[in-house]
Amino acid sequence: MANADKKTDGGGYDSGGAMWGGRFEEAVSSVVERFGESVSFDKKLYRQDLRGSRAHATMLQAQGLITEDECKAIVSGLAEVESEIEAGTFNWRADREDVHMNVESVLIDKIGEAGKKLHTARSRNDQVVTDVRMWVREAIDEVRAKLRATQVALYDLAAANEGVVVPGYTHLQRAQPLLLQHSLLAYVEQLERDRERLLDCRKRVNLCPLGACALAGTGLNIDRHATSEALGFSEPLANSVDAVSDRDFLLEYVSCLSILAMHTSRLAEEWVLWTSEEFKFMLMGDSVSTGSSIMPQKKNPDPMELTRGKTARVYGALMTLLTLCKGLPQAYNRDLQEDKEPLFDSTETTIMVLEVVAEFARNVTFNTEHINKGLGAGFLDATTLADYLVRKGMAFRSAHEVVGKCVALGESKNCELKDLSLEELQGINNIFTGDVYESLGVQNSVNQFQSYGSTGAKCVEQQMQRWGDEFKKGKGKRKQCD
Amino acid sequence: MANADKKTDGGGYDSGGAMWGGRFEEAVSSVVERFGESVSFDKKLYRQDLRGSRAHATMLQAQGLITEDECKAIVSGLAEVESEIEAGTFNWRADREDVHMNVESVLIDKIGEAGKKLHTARSRNDQVVTDVRMWVREAIDEVRAKLRATQVALYDLAAANEGVVVPGYTHLQRAQPLLLQHSLLAYVEQLERDRERLLDCRKRVNLCPLGACALAGTGLNIDRHATSEALGFSEPLANSVDAVSDRDFLLEYVSCLSILAMHTSRLAEEWVLWTSEEFKFMLMGDSVSTGSSIMPQKKNPDPMELTRGKTARVYGALMTLLTLCKGLPQAYNRDLQEDKEPLFDSTETTIMVLEVVAEFARNVTFNTEHINKGLGAGFLDATTLADYLVRKGMAFRSAHEVVGKCVALGESKNCELKDLSLEELQGINNIFTGDVYESLGVQNSVNQFQSYGSTGAKCVEQQMQRWGDEFKKGKGKRKQCD
Amino acid sequence: MANADKKTDGGGYDSGGAMWGGRFEEAVSSVVERFGESVSFDKKLYRQDLRGSRAHATMLQAQGLITEDECKAIVSGLAEVESEIEAGTFNWRADREDVHMNVESVLIDKIGEAGKKLHTARSRNDQVVTDVRMWVREAIDEVRAKLRATQVALYDLAAANEGVVVPGYTHLQRAQPLLLQHSLLAYVEQLERDRERLLDCRKRVNLCPLGACALAGTGLNIDRHATSEALGFSEPLANSVDAVSDRDFLLEYVSCLSILAMHTSRLAEEWVLWTSEEFKFMLMGDSVSTGSSIMPQKKNPDPMELTRGKTARVYGALMTLLTLCKGLPQAYNRDLQEDKEPLFDSTETTIMVLEVVAEFARNVTFNTEHINKGLGAGFLDATTLADYLVRKGMAFRSAHEVVGKCVALGESKNCELKDLSLEELQGINNIFTGDVYESLGVQNSVNQFQSYGSTGAKCVEQQMQRWGDEFKKGKGKRKQCD
Amino acid sequence: MANADKKTDGGGYDSGGAMWGGRFEEAVSSVVERFGESVSFDKKLYRQDLRGSRAHATMLQAQGLITEDECKAIVSGLAEVESEIEAGTFNWRADREDVHMNVESVLIDKIGEAGKKLHTARSRNDQVVTDVRMWVREAIDEVRAKLRATQVALYDLAAANEGVVVPGYTHLQRAQPLLLQHSLLAYVEQLERDRERLLDCRKRVNLCPLGACALAGTGLNIDRHATSEALGFSEPLANSVDAVSDRDFLLEYVSCLSILAMHTSRLAEEWVLWTSEEFKFMLMGDSVSTGSSIMPQKKNPDPMELTRGKTARVYGALMTLLTLCKGLPQAYNRDLQEDKEPLFDSTETTIMVLEVVAEFARNVTFNTEHINKGLGAGFLDATTLADYLVRKGMAFRSAHEVVGKCVALGESKNCELKDLSLEELQGINNIFTGDVYESLGVQNSVNQFQSYGSTGAKCVEQQMQRWGDEFKKGKGKRKQCD
Repeated sequence: MANADKKTDGGGYDSGGAMWGGRFEEAVSSVVERFGESVSFDKKLYRQDLRGSRAHATMLQAQGLITEDECKAIVSGLAEVESEIEAGTFNWRADREDVHMNVESVLIDKIGEAGKKLHTARSRNDQVVTDVRMWVREAIDEVRAKLRATQVALYDLAAANEGVVVPGYTHLQRAQPLLLQHSLLAYVEQLERDRERLLDCRKRVNLCPLGACALAGTGLNIDRHATSEALGFSEPLANSVDAVSDRDFLLEYVSCLSILAMHTSRLAEEWVLWTSEEFKFMLMGDSVSTGSSIMPQKKNPDPMELTRGKTARVYGALMTLLTLCKGLPQAYNRDLQEDKEPLFDSTETTIMVLEVVAEFARNVTFNTEHINKGLGAGFLDATTLADYLVRKGMAFRSAHEVVGKCVALGESKNCELKDLSLEELQGINNIFTGDVYESLGVQNSVNQFQSYGSTGAKCVEQQMQRWGDEFKKGKGKRKQCD
Repeated sequence: MANADKKTDGGGYDSGGAMWGGRFEEAVSSVVERFGESVSFDKKLYRQDLRGSRAHATMLQAQGLITEDECKAIVSGLAEVESEIEAGTFNWRADREDVHMNVESVLIDKIGEAGKKLHTARSRNDQVVTDVRMWVREAIDEVRAKLRATQVALYDLAAANEGVVVPGYTHLQRAQPLLLQHSLLAYVEQLERDRERLLDCRKRVNLCPLGACALAGTGLNIDRHATSEALGFSEPLANSVDAVSDRDFLLEYVSCLSILAMHTSRLAEEWVLWTSEEFKFMLMGDSVSTGSSIMPQKKNPDPMELTRGKTARVYGALMTLLTLCKGLPQAYNRDLQEDKEPLFDSTETTIMVLEVVAEFARNVTFNTEHINKGLGAGFLDATTLADYLVRKGMAFRSAHEVVGKCVALGESKNCELKDLSLEELQGINNIFTGDVYESLGVQNSVNQFQSYGSTGAKCVEQQMQRWGDEFKKGKGKRKQCD
Repeated sequence: MANADKKTDGGGYDSGGAMWGGRFEEAVSSVVERFGESVSFDKKLYRQDLRGSRAHATMLQAQGLITEDECKAIVSGLAEVESEIEAGTFNWRADREDVHMNVESVLIDKIGEAGKKLHTARSRNDQVVTDVRMWVREAIDEVRAKLRATQVALYDLAAANEGVVVPGYTHLQRAQPLLLQHSLLAYVEQLERDRERLLDCRKRVNLCPLGACALAGTGLNIDRHATSEALGFSEPLANSVDAVSDRDFLLEYVSCLSILAMHTSRLAEEWVLWTSEEFKFMLMGDSVSTGSSIMPQKKNPDPMELTRGKTARVYGALMTLLTLCKGLPQAYNRDLQEDKEPLFDSTETTIMVLEVVAEFARNVTFNTEHINKGLGAGFLDATTLADYLVRKGMAFRSAHEVVGKCVALGESKNCELKDLSLEELQGINNIFTGDVYESLGVQNSVNQFQSYGSTGAKCVEQQMQRWGDEFKKGKGKRKQCD
Repeated sequence: MANADKKTDGGGYDSGGAMWGGRFEEAVSSVVERFGESVSFDKKLYRQDLRGSRAHATMLQAQGLITEDECKAIVSGLAEVESEIEAGTFNWRADREDVHMNVESVLIDKIGEAGKKLHTARSRNDQVVTDVRMWVREAIDEVRAKLRATQVALYDLAAANEGVVVPGYTHLQRAQPLLLQHSLLAYVEQLERDRERLLDCRKRVNLCPLGACALAGTGLNIDRHATSEALGFSEPLANSVDAVSDRDFLLEYVSCLSILAMHTSRLAEEWVLWTSEEFKFMLMGDSVSTGSSIMPQKKNPDPMELTRGKTARVYGALMTLLTLCKGLPQAYNRDLQEDKEPLFDSTETTIMVLEVVAEFARNVTFNTEHINKGLGAGFLDATTLADYLVRKGMAFRSAHEVVGKCVALGESKNCELKDLSLEELQGINNIFTGDVYESLGVQNSVNQFQSYGSTGAKCVEQQMQRWGDEFKKGKGKRKQCD
């Protein structure tokens, strides 16, 4: 309807919607307009869009393509637009399609003729992807900061639980004892790789498409290096067709988020287990758990369940983006408009997930009494016993078999390995001597570990030290390089 | 903050947020609350939720679990709630988590004690999935209606273009001539299978979980068959654990939408090609095309590009739902809260895509003059010539080879097959006689087709007739069976 | 190289590879040949392909397009081919591209001229999709039979554990008691819907494309209804373009398998939990568990882990097929060749998963002593206590809060609800009377359930009866309708 | 059955299958064995596995954990195993589960007691992921080399077509003229980012898990830095739990392949279009196209269609891996066995796709005569005309509208812009002067472009130069570091 109005009053860009109406005689039908508008979600790019326009105008002036007065008018007009947007008084219009046209139209309303010059040597094709690249760059910085904060929360939780031993699992069966610190630092390592991955991705995000125009560049004497620098990009993209066509940087970014989400889904799964009645390793604070509308006794680890569930959403965003770009001919195709919502949603989801994991970590305690009581179950020291036999000179495969028999005996007697008598052990194999008891029992077992990166107390202490140093260092320079 | 208030004033359900606070001493932290709330999107279920509550209350009264007065109070309270929601005056609160708790809390505020009885023999676990099933059931009906409308638009486009011949492609290479009607009816067939698929899916959607409560059913004397019937379900689900755990009906529904989106993506791709300068088969009305912010001559098939692009979004929703449900233990897990947004988004996307395809179909014309001029290219009649040789008794494989040579000759002479002289043809193989020219040329070629389902004029006429009858019939009984 | 030979000896179909070489002067390069061949995987369709060819030849004869002798020669030639394939002596050649061309070439080698007539009024485009539809139809029947066998194994496991009570979980927190039979029947219900879904899908699979030829049908006088019937299809597809273009039936089929895989992943997750040291509900037989190469005490539920993991593979196949078909113009495009491997792999995976779940179910026992010992934990009877209060006339919301306080008291005293004295209970609310103890304790709790589909003993007994009858019935008529 | 034998002859590891049989009394059932075996696909890792074992044995000796003689026996035994594998005489056995156990069992058969020591301080959990990381490292190097070769093929194709102008498209509508070289270099840029992305990924792949053992490290005195260095890794992973749990490097790698596949799908789509009758820009050599089994005139771009289609397969592999890892608790879970097939398949697919794209590029020619004939259509010079007006001082938005009117006039007269008379132009706006004709016509248009990265002749020449230099440089140092 807005659109129809536009046409009846003469189709001028200043009063109506679309700026490309020149040769069109009929308005776009309302269902098509509703289908095609993107302003309802791409207005989220307004800061980037305004910054890009300022840099563009400044360059146009420096190159003599607009006058100083025109440039000033544009810059101050854009400032006004920004204020209105931030005050919530800006009149976003769906019939003006997208953030770019909304801003430009209002600018023209405000400053007239000069406003009509802003789009010189620019197309929405290069403009939108410039905005998106700036947005992703900031998103990367924010996600990396949240990753660091989550690492710190995990580290602090570890620091508060020095010496606590938990069962380590493979196949969700009890395997070997772990220092809880070691177990928690595994997640810190994983999140660190997520940080690195995002930093590598950022290199490919931080390239400037502005000036690629529709797809071929321009015959006007613009300075792409100048706008690239002004916008904080490392350099302009070297091929205009590539610049407006490709979204590989987005796919890479959401791949990084998907991998990150995989990591948080595993932590969440583990913590859901740890808070169950059966494991009962972890006790949740009231501030991070919820109850049931029907069962009065329930205390549910909802934040971890949702963390796990939200993984699905990030994966879905990646699949959307991959599907979207598949088989599109060069250069810009309108399909690409669909790249924004999965980008925004996966970013917001990731940030919130990281905040929640950190908050959860800050509000749990470990039920060490209960954990300790149960450590005797599951023969966690069996592999340590095999190592004992290896040290005695037995081949590992033979040791594995001997210990298998010890375990069977323990099971049949319903006791731990350390409760088997020396006679019983020697009945299985006469290699055993009294010193075997130094390798039995969970505490002895965990003390034995010594390999680099193992759960041995010294190794873990070193790693705690390393991370502690890293986080302190980080505090000093977080502002700089990230 | 709202949450904190709740706690300081005594934790009462009527003033604060969560209704399960009994044994909790501390409020949920704000980041966790924000993360966990679903009311911002699940309020879309309010109509279903209110309907469900009305049926539940009525059943509770019939079973003597609440009094007639309580039931009346609930029903009229819910009516008030509904009015407020529809008037936009309802106070949705994130600290009340979801649509269910928002409604119940306000109901209790309104009617007091009786309101506290509504949740008797009910849990949010069965309540939410009852709501979702009703929502999906309606969505299926709407999508099916839109599918039918789109079929009709395609049929009407076909009807307006009787006799038009277009090149048919395989491998995007010209293959054989097609009646345009035949080509368009292919899409009508595909959308018909989408309709059937959704109807089959509907059977598995339309089962009632209400009364499964948290997961185990209830010890109170409820009548699940009564609520099932009152809500229009075909029967109650027979296992309470299954009823609250499974979302297979949702996966099936979004699978159906994904297949549908695949279909529309193919139509869109074809029409993007057909509107290009190179094909130029199809001319778009201004109301379904858009221009460029930089290139004044452009007229772009954006609605079709977006139709193609939005496929990605539906696929993403499916991938989200599949990932979400993978590996969850029974019964309800909070992850499942994440099922709603992909459901809503894929449904809305599908409906809009279908509207746009129909609108596009109603606003294009075929450039028959241009199409006809180009029909001579690509040897579309080559297979018809092979059939001619088969009719003369030549083995198909040999005929294929002979025609291959004719084509090579035509290519070298840069002419069509029908322009080769009889002598030239006989030079390749002396089986040719003068009647060969009845099988040459695109019009002769298309006239030859006679197999059931082929592009032969009579076959296509029959199919047009069949669909015309179907659509007429549909008009009469749409209300009934869908 | 084989290809190069073909060309130097004159390009004849009988000695070389491709049958379409007529107008080509140069051989396909070896990397392209290797890339394009499909025989290495589509030979799996040989039975369907031969059956289709027999039906096609018989129809060609009935229609007078080939002679009786030619038909006989073809049929007996195909029989010879079948014997060779089954004996493993058939010479599959990559340079002959696919199963169709391999079979046809050898047939021609064997029977000469008549063999060259088999491809009359047929294209590989309709041939391959006819084969695939027959293959999927059989696959559906087999998957449905395996589903039924798995249901029976679950039922038998349930039957062997009458009266066993397990904790039911929501959010993986203990919620309410469940009869183990009830819990197991939830999976039986889910697999039943998988069976129904596949049966609905089968309707859309079982339509015959044969005779659609390349895309347009044919000018030869064929009888598509005859071949459709001979091949057991319900009817021929009504539009030739649609018939060769669409793979929606495949997407639907693999969607069904994905939903099924979601179901088995959940069962697997639950059983991995149940076999852990912490839950220890389920004991695995040696024949369905495996050990560790390093930890001698381990007994791992690998079959369930792999069942869960293989879900990923089926989802991947679905994503492959969805992506594949997105945005393809009509009609056949070579991309579609890629539809077979995900089809075969997801089918084989599903069948094996179902066999393994059934085998696992047949080789586990429940550790009822241990389960019983633990039932007191987690206040599984809390909701039953709330129901008690409701029966006493208290509003559910108030009851919920009162029970919350009882639970808090129990927790602080580290006892079960049933261990609280009447005085203590009355200290919380004076509504309690001595009969409250009939609602306390897990066994009392489970006895209280009475709603349809609940875990109440009578309800579960009915369901066991229903399924037992269904499976008995199934045995009689499995051959017929499935 | 093999398994059953194993048990009856005493369960010894040297004669039977699994090495963990110590406490198991019954054989694994055959369906479970078939389900669980991985040797049918993971034997592809044999080279990495043997290399890892050699390095491990050497380290064990250096640390005094085995003797020099034992080490020699192991190393020479492994050499024998390698010869047998490469000669095809190695007896792979499914009942020995995987490549690791097959190799170790045969080694023990060959060298006896010393062989039983190889698995000292090692688990299959760290062994397999060490193997996989080495495999992926090599795969990255190979994919990067193929990317480079494909870039060179595209560059060579560009070099052979200097000066050729093609229409550039947005929305698949003609937009602006492009130098063909510019269009082709866009793909070279994209593949270069794929190379960088893989190189960044390689850093995270090239970390050594060996010595993490089952999950906790070991109490034996091993030297992880030594094995890490011997195997060419940059350093050992610092946390043993992380080392055996995580597969993020695999997800990242297959994400890189998916992005690459997206790029090749777009090139393929474009080239499918370009080889169609309607575009006819590109002519395929016989060696890279195929014919039809029914339509004798067809020449299909199958390699490009399959390239596009195979994208689906790579995406599917990514989705499989993402789903697989979602929600797994730490550390090793058997699900992870499923990581190999998608890894192998996506790698092989990618390598073949790149070879085919290069081969295709080497076997096409451009139909410049036809392209040139068509350049007049589509008003490719419209934007250049707008730039002309901007240079004259008109605001861009006004210029856009004026040119829109010129285009409308051209359309109505069915002529190009350059065919409009000066009078006609001035009739639209009197700003036009005679020099306007220097900005009209496609050749003039393309000459005008001058911005960095644009399609202007000088800009493109520079880029051709840059890439030429890069490829020459590459030749010298490809061996070194990539």
